[in-house]
Order: sequence, then C-alpha cells, then structure tokens
Amino acid sequence: MDAEARAEAIAREQTVEVPRVVAEREPFVAHQILGRVERVSGAGSGASVATIAYPLAATACDPAQLLGVLFGNASLYPDVECVDFDPPASLCQALRGPRFGLAGLREVSGVRDRALTCTAVKPLGLSPAELAARLRTFARAGIDVIKDDQGLADHSFCPFEERVRACLEAAEEVAQETGHRALYVPNLIGTPGRVFAQLRFAEDAGARAVMASPLLLGLPTFWELCQRRASVPVIAHPSHAGALRYAPELLFGKLLRLYGADAVIFVGFAGRFGTPRETCAAIAANLRAPWRGLAASLPVAGGGLELEGVAEAVAFYGRDTMLLVGGSLQLEEGGILERSRAFVRAVGEASAGLVREGAVAP
Amino acid sequence: MDAEARAEAIAREQTVEVPRVVAEREPFVAHQILGRVERVSGAGSGASVATIAYPLAATACDPAQLLGVLFGNASLYPDVECVDFDPPASLCQALRGPRFGLAGLREVSGVRDRALTCTAVKPLGLSPAELAARLRTFARAGIDVIKDDQGLADHSFCPFEERVRACLEAAEEVAQETGHRALYVPNLIGTPGRVFAQLRFAEDAGARAVMASPLLLGLPTFWELCQRRASVPVIAHPSHAGALRYAPELLFGKLLRLYGADAVIFVGFAGRFGTPRETCAAIAANLRAPWRGLAASLPVAGGGLELEGVAEAVAFYGRDTMLLVGGSLQLEEGGILERSRAFVRAVGEASAGLVREGAVAP
Repeated sequence: MDAEARAEAIAREQTVEVPRVVAEREPFVAHQILGRVERVSGAGSGASVATIAYPLAATACDPAQLLGVLFGNASLYPDVECVDFDPPASLCQALRGPRFGLAGLREVSGVRDRALTCTAVKPLGLSPAELAARLRTFARAGIDVIKDDQGLADHSFCPFEERVRACLEAAEEVAQETGHRALYVPNLIGTPGRVFAQLRFAEDAGARAVMASPLLLGLPTFWELCQRRASVPVIAHPSHAGALRYAPELLFGKLLRLYGADAVIFVGFAGRFGTPRETCAAIAANLRAPWRGLAASLPVAGGGLELEGVAEAVAFYGRDTMLLVGGSLQLEEGGILERSRAFVRAVGEASAGLVREGAVAP
Repeated sequence: MDAEARAEAIAREQTVEVPRVVAEREPFVAHQILGRVERVSGAGSGASVATIAYPLAATACDPAQLLGVLFGNASLYPDVECVDFDPPASLCQALRGPRFGLAGLREVSGVRDRALTCTAVKPLGLSPAELAARLRTFARAGIDVIKDDQGLADHSFCPFEERVRACLEAAEEVAQETGHRALYVPNLIGTPGRVFAQLRFAEDAGARAVMASPLLLGLPTFWELCQRRASVPVIAHPSHAGALRYAPELLFGKLLRLYGADAVIFVGFAGRFGTPRETCAAIAANLRAPWRGLAASLPVAGGGLELEGVAEAVAFYGRDTMLLVGGSLQLEEGGILERSRAFVRAVGEASAGLVREGAVAP
C-alpha cells in the first residue's frame, strides 16, 4: 500500500473504523467524524509524514478519548509513530494544561532569577528516618527542590505517610536552622483510589508540590490528578514513558503540558540515556513556548546528569529550567553535603553568567 | 558497554537508581532491594536477552509500582524491550487476575461448547437509536457478544447513558422475540471518576459485562476497575497498546490477564495489522494456560478479521476463543443481517468440525 493509502486508512482507523463505503453512507459520519488526510510527504529513508485532521467532535474533549483518536488503534501498526499534534484552542481550554506551571513553581520554591536545583531522596530500601537524614543534608546545602525517588511507593519498610511526615519535618527543621526552606516533593503512585488518598494526606501534612509518573498511572488519571484533585503543583516523572512510541518532543513537550504537568522531568543529553541535544532543546522549547494560552511548564533535565555537567546544562537550557542531579551527589560517603553545595554553587554561578551575557532563555 | 554491563545497569536502574557503590553501603538495600542479573545470552542479530531477578519487596505488590520495577526507567533506553516476566505466586495472588475469566464469559453469554461470536456497534457518529438498530440486526442474526466500538465515548451526539440504555433495551427486545439474548458490552472511557461512574450506571441499567482500553486508561486504573469496582466481567480492548514497547505475548497474554481482564481483544494474523501467527498462538496460549492459580482469560481475535477468514481462525485458535468481526459485517447495505447470520453459522460449523476431529484447544 502506498503512503497516501496508508494515511487514508489511518484517518478511518482512528475515527470510524469501518470501510469507507460504510462510513460514507451516513452524511453526519462522513462530514463530522471521519478523519481527513491533509498532506503526505516523504521524510527520508523511505518513511513518510502524513498530516491528518480529526474532527474535534470525535474526541468528546475527553482526556482518554483524545489519546484514542490520536494514536489508539494506529499504534498497533508496528511501523507507525505519532510525531506531533496541533490541538485547537478549544481543546486546550478543555484540557486546561498547567494550573501553576513554571511561574507557580518559581513562586512556591522562592527562586526568582536563576535555574533551579533538584535532587532525589533515595535509594529505595532506606527507612523514612534515613531518607529524612538525606533530605536534611541536601537542604542544608541549599538545594531548592528535593523530590522522592519515583521508586518510593508505599513499602512496608518505608510507608508513604511516615516518609512524607518525616521529610516535611526535616525540611522545616533545616528552614528554622538556616532560613532555606527546601521544597520537598512526595511521589504519588498506585491505583487512582490510592493516589488520590496519598495526595490528600500529603497536602494535609503540608506538602507544597507533589510528583507522579503519568505514563505509569495513565494520562487520564494524571489529568484528573492535576485538574480535579491537586491544589499544589504537580511534577511529572518520565518513568515508563519510553515504553511509548511517541516522539519525545511531543510526549514530554506537549502532551504532558496539555494534561497539566507544572514541571516535566525528562532524560537529557548529559546522562545515561543519550537523548540527542536537538531533542532536548525541542522538549524545553515546547514546554515554555506560548501555546494556545496554556501556562508554561518548567523543564527539568535529569536522567543521570552529573555535577560536572551542570554549568554546561544551564548554558544550554537557560534560566527557566530545573536541573536534577541524583545519585551523583551521593557518590562519596561523607561527601554528600560538599557535593550538594558544589551543585548549588555551580547552578548559581552559571545562571549569573547567563544574565551577564544577556543570554537568558525564553 | 557490553551486554553484561548493560544488564547490571538495568538491574540497578529499576530498583535503587544510584551507582552500585552507593547501594552497597546499605546492607538492606544491597540484599533486599537491588535487582540481580541471573543470565545474559545472545539472541541473534547482535541483540542479547538478559534475565534479571527483582525482589518482590521492591514492587510493594502495587499495580503501578510493579510496572515501574518491570519497565519504568529502563523503557527510556531506546534499544531495550521488555519481552517477558515471571511473577511469583504471591504477586499473582496480590494482583488476582481475572475474576470471571473465560469460564465466567461462557456463563454470562450462555455459550458452552463452541467458539464465541462478537461484533461491534459502530461507526462513531451514529445516534443511540441508530446504534441500537444495528445491535438489533446483529442480535437477530444470533451473534453472542455485541460490544461498543472503543471509539464510543460520551459524545454530545451519542451520550453514554442514552446509548447504553437503548442498546440494552434492543437486546432485550430481540431476546423476547427470538429467545436469543445477546450480551451487549458498553465501552467505558475517560478519567477514573468518569469511568467508575459509567460502570455504576451500566451495571444498574443491567449490563452483564463491560469493556475498557487498559492502555488508554492506564493499567493501574484498569486494575482498580476490575478488582475493586466491577461486579461483571471486563473485556480489554487493545487501543493504544501498540504504543508500548512490550512484546505482544507479554502485554496481551500475561500483563492484561494478571491485571484482571476476563477477555482480551488482540489484533490477529488475519486482518490489517499483520500480527505473525506464532505471536497470535503465544498470546492465546498465555491467556489460557494454567498460571499460578489465575483464572484463564478468553482470547478475542479481532483487528480486521473478515467473514471469509472465520473458519480458519476457529481451526487455529480452537473453541475457547471469541472471534470479533467488525466492519466486514456492514459491508453491504441491507445485507448486514445476512452477513451476520453467515458469521454465526461459520463459527458454529467450524467449532463442530473441531469437536468431530477431537482437535479441541486447551
């Protein structure tokens, strides 16, 4: 089948899923529901890019149905990838995007004029008291945002509620001691009932932001979390996201923003996942660019970023970014405080350098 | 990095996500949490297969956390695929698998001794009354299971509640008329709050089974639907599932069964997705095989199966199967009843053939 015919088949597959002759018997179906191929062009190495318009009505403006129209059955063709989408303003208004976004995260963390620093309490297997001790060290070093590792669930050896309480207390203790109140971000994970209960507990206990993995929970659950449940910013973690055959610029840069992520962690070029630089630049640009009136999301570059790569990352992403350095801060036993301080210093200096050079990212 | 080193890195990535030296400082972490590489072997064309054991404790027996341990961050390596997993009995007991399964679907549909027939009311764009009219035709032809198309959501031109009520009434009407009570299966789609409300409505209205797309909703939401909310069998639709880089035998044959799907629709060899025959056989075998005490799920072969391919499909999959023929039944205007009857007849005859030859599938 040639590219035009394939595109036409996908336009049907994603809407009416019947032979064209069946769809065309009903005028409403033919004109208001059926997808329409707008353009097919070569994309090198034998691949083609098809642009297909789907009627908004087909999506019912529902967060789950939208995914079905975008890449539901078409995902079952092993050679088809979903590389971009361009939702109309009405769909963006219906889904709403970030409620706090980049600006909200700056406000809640108190960081105005530079890139933000972030690390994680881990590894999985430590007790709440041990994780809180790690948090205390990071907070004393002046790190802005200290999140749970995404692998911290509700384990018998580290129950969710005990951990959240211990970490919030530790952050407050250091705030009394040093005047720097680190933003501790608990990880929410489980079935919807459990996730919403964890959110309620965390907010009641005083958490000022939370984290979740939208591609583990399912994007519709993440949407309900952001738009209907949370009253604090939500940071998206990429766990399980690579399992999806979406282009990363689309998934991290657009879909997660549209669904409501106030900050989006992605795996950057400097790290163990080897994302190409142009992909990283496109993700960050998509998260921050003006887009149908949606608030900007804060790009969070992680995925194995090391202390040594921080200055270059700030120069690359600009000030409106958060840098996530995890395991690298814990490399030397007894040296965690020192390495954390070096991280904070490096981001501060690199951000100041940007301002001096006038190279402030959008 | 060689295959052994990659496997070791993945074993860490999926559990502690810190350098080995950090993990090994804590005895509990090193012995009770850290993944362990059991075997690495070549798999042809330069690929390797690594078998990694993860401590059950890391999963917290939670449906979301399990996915994170299985393929969370590792999914972000573009060259890593998750091809199989072997959960211990305790994890299977915790997740529970199908509550009705193959046997329950036989009971609710009243089909004892042959393959089952299935079709969908569609296309999207028809009104509840028009879909109910389609259903009436299919039911009169004697089709066993008539499900919503997975693209039927809660559209303004076809509201969920009105559609479910109309289709249930139509099925009942035909039952009074012919004695054959087709099983109408509404599609649930949306955010968790909406999906659970749709379920409640459908059950109260008399639906005896429901359908959902686990890879649109998210597997943890699907688990809660099956295990905590539904009191009728749940059929899984594959929409969005191809977006996942899981091997299909694993995703359709094992993960969906473990999470609770009583029947699993997959795209078969005879259809527009071109799934290889050995993959189809492996999916069906995984769904039906004895497995850690879990109930068997009913395999549902679909994805563009045509009337003409039905006999071969019954011979291939055996009796403990449901065949899903969709758009093909609607090809000839005015001929829907006839083609539906031919479908029912073909499945009955092919099933009888199997019994005569003694070639009954497990």
